[in-house]
Amino acid sequence: MQYRYKLDEIINTALNEDIGSGDITTLATVDEAKRTEGFFVAKEDGVVCGLPVVSRVFELIDPEIRLEAYFDDGDTVEKGDCIAKVSGPAQGILTGERVALNFLQRLSGIATRTREAVSQVAGTKCAVTDTRKTVPGLRWLDKYAVRTGGGVNHRFNLADGILIKDNHISAAGSIGQAIAKTRSAATHMLKIEVEVENFAQIEEALSCGADVIMLDNMSIEDMTKAVEIINGRAIVEASGNMGERGLSEVARTGVDLISVGALTHSVSAMDISLKFSL
Amino acid sequence: MQYRYKLDEIINTALNEDIGSGDITTLATVDEAKRTEGFFVAKEDGVVCGLPVVSRVFELIDPEIRLEAYFDDGDTVEKGDCIAKVSGPAQGILTGERVALNFLQRLSGIATRTREAVSQVAGTKCAVTDTRKTVPGLRWLDKYAVRTGGGVNHRFNLADGILIKDNHISAAGSIGQAIAKTRSAATHMLKIEVEVENFAQIEEALSCGADVIMLDNMSIEDMTKAVEIINGRAIVEASGNMGERGLSEVARTGVDLISVGALTHSVSAMDISLKFSL
Amino acid sequence: MQYRYKLDEIINTALNEDIGSGDITTLATVDEAKRTEGFFVAKEDGVVCGLPVVSRVFELIDPEIRLEAYFDDGDTVEKGDCIAKVSGPAQGILTGERVALNFLQRLSGIATRTREAVSQVAGTKCAVTDTRKTVPGLRWLDKYAVRTGGGVNHRFNLADGILIKDNHISAAGSIGQAIAKTRSAATHMLKIEVEVENFAQIEEALSCGADVIMLDNMSIEDMTKAVEIINGRAIVEASGNMGERGLSEVARTGVDLISVGALTHSVSAMDISLKFSL
Amino acid sequence: MQYRYKLDEIINTALNEDIGSGDITTLATVDEAKRTEGFFVAKEDGVVCGLPVVSRVFELIDPEIRLEAYFDDGDTVEKGDCIAKVSGPAQGILTGERVALNFLQRLSGIATRTREAVSQVAGTKCAVTDTRKTVPGLRWLDKYAVRTGGGVNHRFNLADGILIKDNHISAAGSIGQAIAKTRSAATHMLKIEVEVENFAQIEEALSCGADVIMLDNMSIEDMTKAVEIINGRAIVEASGNMGERGLSEVARTGVDLISVGALTHSVSAMDISLKFSL
Amino acid sequence: MQYRYKLDEIINTALNEDIGSGDITTLATVDEAKRTEGFFVAKEDGVVCGLPVVSRVFELIDPEIRLEAYFDDGDTVEKGDCIAKVSGPAQGILTGERVALNFLQRLSGIATRTREAVSQVAGTKCAVTDTRKTVPGLRWLDKYAVRTGGGVNHRFNLADGILIKDNHISAAGSIGQAIAKTRSAATHMLKIEVEVENFAQIEEALSCGADVIMLDNMSIEDMTKAVEIINGRAIVEASGNMGERGLSEVARTGVDLISVGALTHSVSAMDISLKFSL
Amino acid sequence: MQYRYKLDEIINTALNEDIGSGDITTLATVDEAKRTEGFFVAKEDGVVCGLPVVSRVFELIDPEIRLEAYFDDGDTVEKGDCIAKVSGPAQGILTGERVALNFLQRLSGIATRTREAVSQVAGTKCAVTDTRKTVPGLRWLDKYAVRTGGGVNHRFNLADGILIKDNHISAAGSIGQAIAKTRSAATHMLKIEVEVENFAQIEEALSCGADVIMLDNMSIEDMTKAVEIINGRAIVEASGNMGERGLSEVARTGVDLISVGALTHSVSAMDISLKFSL
Repeated sequence: MQYRYKLDEIINTALNEDIGSGDITTLATVDEAKRTEGFFVAKEDGVVCGLPVVSRVFELIDPEIRLEAYFDDGDTVEKGDCIAKVSGPAQGILTGERVALNFLQRLSGIATRTREAVSQVAGTKCAVTDTRKTVPGLRWLDKYAVRTGGGVNHRFNLADGILIKDNHISAAGSIGQAIAKTRSAATHMLKIEVEVENFAQIEEALSCGADVIMLDNMSIEDMTKAVEIINGRAIVEASGNMGERGLSEVARTGVDLISVGALTHSVSAMDISLKFSL
Repeated sequence: MQYRYKLDEIINTALNEDIGSGDITTLATVDEAKRTEGFFVAKEDGVVCGLPVVSRVFELIDPEIRLEAYFDDGDTVEKGDCIAKVSGPAQGILTGERVALNFLQRLSGIATRTREAVSQVAGTKCAVTDTRKTVPGLRWLDKYAVRTGGGVNHRFNLADGILIKDNHISAAGSIGQAIAKTRSAATHMLKIEVEVENFAQIEEALSCGADVIMLDNMSIEDMTKAVEIINGRAIVEASGNMGERGLSEVARTGVDLISVGALTHSVSAMDISLKFSL
Repeated sequence: MQYRYKLDEIINTALNEDIGSGDITTLATVDEAKRTEGFFVAKEDGVVCGLPVVSRVFELIDPEIRLEAYFDDGDTVEKGDCIAKVSGPAQGILTGERVALNFLQRLSGIATRTREAVSQVAGTKCAVTDTRKTVPGLRWLDKYAVRTGGGVNHRFNLADGILIKDNHISAAGSIGQAIAKTRSAATHMLKIEVEVENFAQIEEALSCGADVIMLDNMSIEDMTKAVEIINGRAIVEASGNMGERGLSEVARTGVDLISVGALTHSVSAMDISLKFSL
Repeated sequence: MQYRYKLDEIINTALNEDIGSGDITTLATVDEAKRTEGFFVAKEDGVVCGLPVVSRVFELIDPEIRLEAYFDDGDTVEKGDCIAKVSGPAQGILTGERVALNFLQRLSGIATRTREAVSQVAGTKCAVTDTRKTVPGLRWLDKYAVRTGGGVNHRFNLADGILIKDNHISAAGSIGQAIAKTRSAATHMLKIEVEVENFAQIEEALSCGADVIMLDNMSIEDMTKAVEIINGRAIVEASGNMGERGLSEVARTGVDLISVGALTHSVSAMDISLKFSL
Repeated sequence: MQYRYKLDEIINTALNEDIGSGDITTLATVDEAKRTEGFFVAKEDGVVCGLPVVSRVFELIDPEIRLEAYFDDGDTVEKGDCIAKVSGPAQGILTGERVALNFLQRLSGIATRTREAVSQVAGTKCAVTDTRKTVPGLRWLDKYAVRTGGGVNHRFNLADGILIKDNHISAAGSIGQAIAKTRSAATHMLKIEVEVENFAQIEEALSCGADVIMLDNMSIEDMTKAVEIINGRAIVEASGNMGERGLSEVARTGVDLISVGALTHSVSAMDISLKFSL
Repeated sequence: MQYRYKLDEIINTALNEDIGSGDITTLATVDEAKRTEGFFVAKEDGVVCGLPVVSRVFELIDPEIRLEAYFDDGDTVEKGDCIAKVSGPAQGILTGERVALNFLQRLSGIATRTREAVSQVAGTKCAVTDTRKTVPGLRWLDKYAVRTGGGVNHRFNLADGILIKDNHISAAGSIGQAIAKTRSAATHMLKIEVEVENFAQIEEALSCGADVIMLDNMSIEDMTKAVEIINGRAIVEASGNMGERGLSEVARTGVDLISVGALTHSVSAMDISLKFSL
């Protein structure tokens, strides 16, 4: 949750969107001098994520509002737990409630789902990773939530990772040519990952020095065999509608990583509410 | 999908986020002169939404890329249907693929879920509406998708609708005082909606001239009785974890609107892929 | 004057515009260590508005500059009154003088004119309201000044109020169809206002459920008759070159609101100066 | 009206402000395919200014809308004249009407007032100039309108002109020191203007090489005498509540320039309307 | 030179900076209808870079201006060569001249210096790479110029490459711990580069699986020995004031890459002028 | 180094560019609680410039980081001098190191070169001035560095100085017409500078009232003669590849100013490093 200049830009966009020209209901009904306190309460079990965002949302509305968090990002909370207390001028707290919850519920939803996925692969060496299937404008926070849930991040964007897919291969002529062209064009600090659909492609990619092999939509049997073929010569990533599979079974094939798009493309907001008396 | 100046701002944010300093894989492997065509194919049934966004994503990357849509936003598509064809310079198409799909899949997911909700209330006078529980920065598109799916929009932000909740009531002193204060402060063009939890509050709100009554988290029985009490004197909105209820049953209580936060806070991306040969 | 993040954006635009690459005169002639104090003095009677903006202008230039206000926004001041004292580093005070005054004089000019208009309708139930005829980029502040002067705001923009005008009626086919289409498309939280030019249109609008009737450019006699016809069935707004009329006479026709475009489209800056000794 | 990249930034701000999340009335009542044409008609005599802005407003809303202007910026129009025709998709024209008029009416108001001021000094060598008393964010257009009305622009901001005022003088120690310090600090391409209040200051400023003398709030007699003293050794500017004076009399004192803050700080919008049939 | 939305943002910043409120000299002296043509002429030998930027600079000022380039980016030009012709409205061409040249001269300067560096290592397997020592705001273009000159890019920013330096090592406890922590935190698509100062560190880094070894400020002898030790087990980068060394000698030590900060931190603009007749 | 709102905008651009989605190496290897201190050390003699920028870079990353400067901007430092100490959270210091150095080294490089140029003209009345040949986006800082080195600034942009060049003359018809047109169009606060290539043009410019004469690319002999001809009737600026000449010799011709594009278009970064132990 570093880099306040990034965070502020995202939050200001959200506040402008949600407040528009002003929160007319609150301005009309709540005295400017009135102070209050509210409590963020978990209405279901989950992994909390986004508390520093919530804190900053209120600060940007009114510097006098304070958030006292009873948990840290990444902590497990149970239904009924009081996650944090917000206190200060009532107008600002009521006005910021929805934006604060929109961030907190989405990020906690991602962290919770990630934690579940990670627990499925427990006991194996396999990690769970995300994808670029995030909501436009929120990738930085979405990926933070994945880390908070125990996942590891895949590349952030098209510039900080090389992933050669079928269309790149056909455009370049072959896996070998695609790897060669990429190696000569890209910085030496990036590994080269190649998406493959069959065993022949695995062999070709390995022989050309691919660092990572992505097994696309393979059956458990094929993944098991692929891992045997690769035999440690490259990192192995399993991909393709992993959200709907038994991750445990996939992990036991010996792959190093499972990427799960659903972690961020199909998020269920965690149920959290802001209550003004406990 | 009006207002290109708004759309471009959202898309540019998404492109900057996803492309970063450049799509190194594509630039290395695909010749600048190469042209290609790809097909957006539905991999499950649903309501398509976001085609003008997709078209503009590609235009902003490369003005030579063209999208030919075979459906309109709001059309139902079936698994296997080809939704649209994109053609032009291959570099730009490959680079824009993920951003285009991120928009299309999210918006179609919202439209599809909304269509399902609307179908549950078919045959009643009841409408399905959204909430402010949208993803920060995307509300304008999220709400467009709800309309595309047949829903109607609730207020866009805190400035274009008055909704007096429990905290406003306690701050103002009573329902009556909250309504009076709001009426004198706000523009005359806004109705006044009051959230109520029991029958006494309904009576008070009606006697003070509330235009809309929101029934918060009531049982089917209580909602039925509330509608009888209100008896046409105000619009009636049912609210509170509606995503998990039988909307049909709620609609038959006679309420005018059901607001469903889950339409936008817990979206399942519709499964759509971009294929480069059919 | 809530929402500092909105205020700062407006002020930064103004500072960039007025300071450009730097205040060369001040930088050359005034020692960086020199401190001074100045006094904002009213050079004519009026309603002061914009003091929090002035305070923030100086803070954004130099956090050490302090504004001590002797009046609040909305207070009446007389020629010769000292409105506020600014003190701190002299360079920043001299550099910010013009931007501070540009805001203060315009907003006070609007508040003063609004107060005059409101005093004309005193003793009636009629309110004075503004329009969208504001200066591009300053609507949020312009409308704040109207409220400060005792007026009430009309809709902020095209999204937070429905106003069916003649062209909408002819496009939709009839007043009835325009109302019906709007009611089904727009959120339930907005009232429907219809602009009418004659009594037949009033009847049609009322029979179709219009919430507000805007009488466009009617004579006093016609307005009186219109109010009788409407007879409390809708809110009545008088509109059309109201800045040039006797508002008192219009108010006595029984209309609920008079909208006055001139409050913001033809502003006379209130004469206020910054003096460096009293 | 050069520099489209500047113009677009200003217009986009205005459109975002006025349209918000969408023009709900128009979207509901006007068919997307409907086309229309409207006519900008002068409802009072004046100098038209802002037609290229109007044209671009509509283009940015919908590239299919076209403006056909029957006058050029700077032309005199009479009450009843049709200034321009706008034609194309009806939705966009209705949505852009207010923003287009807000620009056109303000800029024409400034140009008209400037033309009147200029006509008062006709027959003398004296020019009318503006000040920095413009509306925050619109200076570029406000100053364009002054030129269009026949005025000349004073400095655009604090960086492109040196104007030594009383506080600079007292901070520097004397007029002589203020001029010396400024001359050594500023670029050689800027003249040095000094504001004076009496004849002794004029002599001191001239002896130190001031290029321009600003006579602040002097009587006609004193201005006449000041011009005699200066006798061509510097440009002479008359300043100080000039909006309320007989400019003709001031011009005949022999000053070179009269600066009139009211040209831009107290604008009366020119009465222009958009009619949809003539 | 892909990604127009990125390019336009950079150019608009430059135009706003250089044009300010307007090019007063050109507007006063050049008729709006006048057309002209100018020629970009090399005044010294070099590698041209930035022609698409120049073309877009003029387009953004006036869409009617056209650039006809006689060379491509990366071509070698000789003193006296005509690089490109610009033609169209004279006002826009004169106004854009300086910004166009500022881009073209800097980028050509970088490309030229890079080409010289690359030629020094010709005949070896060694590549020349850049650093993050670029001018704030121009990295995207600066790195494009390095590629145009035949260099390869190092990481673009702190997010798309892992480089463990001495401070990271001491903070983590050891090279081994730094590598282990980084490997578990970062995406699997990034290699791990470690900066070393002596042979012991090389051994430690290799034994912990470093992918790239950066030899910091070593003598030719030490670099030679380091390459022998590494013996193909990692990519080897030579770094440290390489701009002042004989790159040829460094390349012959067998290192894979030489990073040269001076390519971008100490640029000599290539001498190019815009002439209006040949 | 005034105007924090300007400085912050430049720095935020630089931080976004250099940090991207996050400094993965530092985040992985350095504990969030760890504190450190580092020392900016001169590795060559020079004039230090940019310390307030460095201070603000770190503050924007983490408000807890403090910079203690041992020199002021404009001070001469020698190889080995410790310029400043930075202390606070280690993560932020390591992350900001490169951006801080990029600013400090460039600005110090400009100040150092300017100081050298100024020393060449010592003992004459001649000043050294810069040009608009700056790096896009950094002009405000580049020109600050020139002042810090003892130079004076030429115009900041096309709006705050009039410079009539050969193309303006030919477009206007003659030097006289160009001056006349400019004088009537531009604010009275700007002097008029004319670029000349021969003695006849000098006479014409003087007779038409040019305030400044720019001698373009003249020989020492011709400059000497030009100064004699002008004989104090205008300020004289020498221009044209002055970076490559003996400025001392040029200054002795009697010109008032020498403009040197190379001060900013061909900058050698001053060698400064951040060391974590002394």
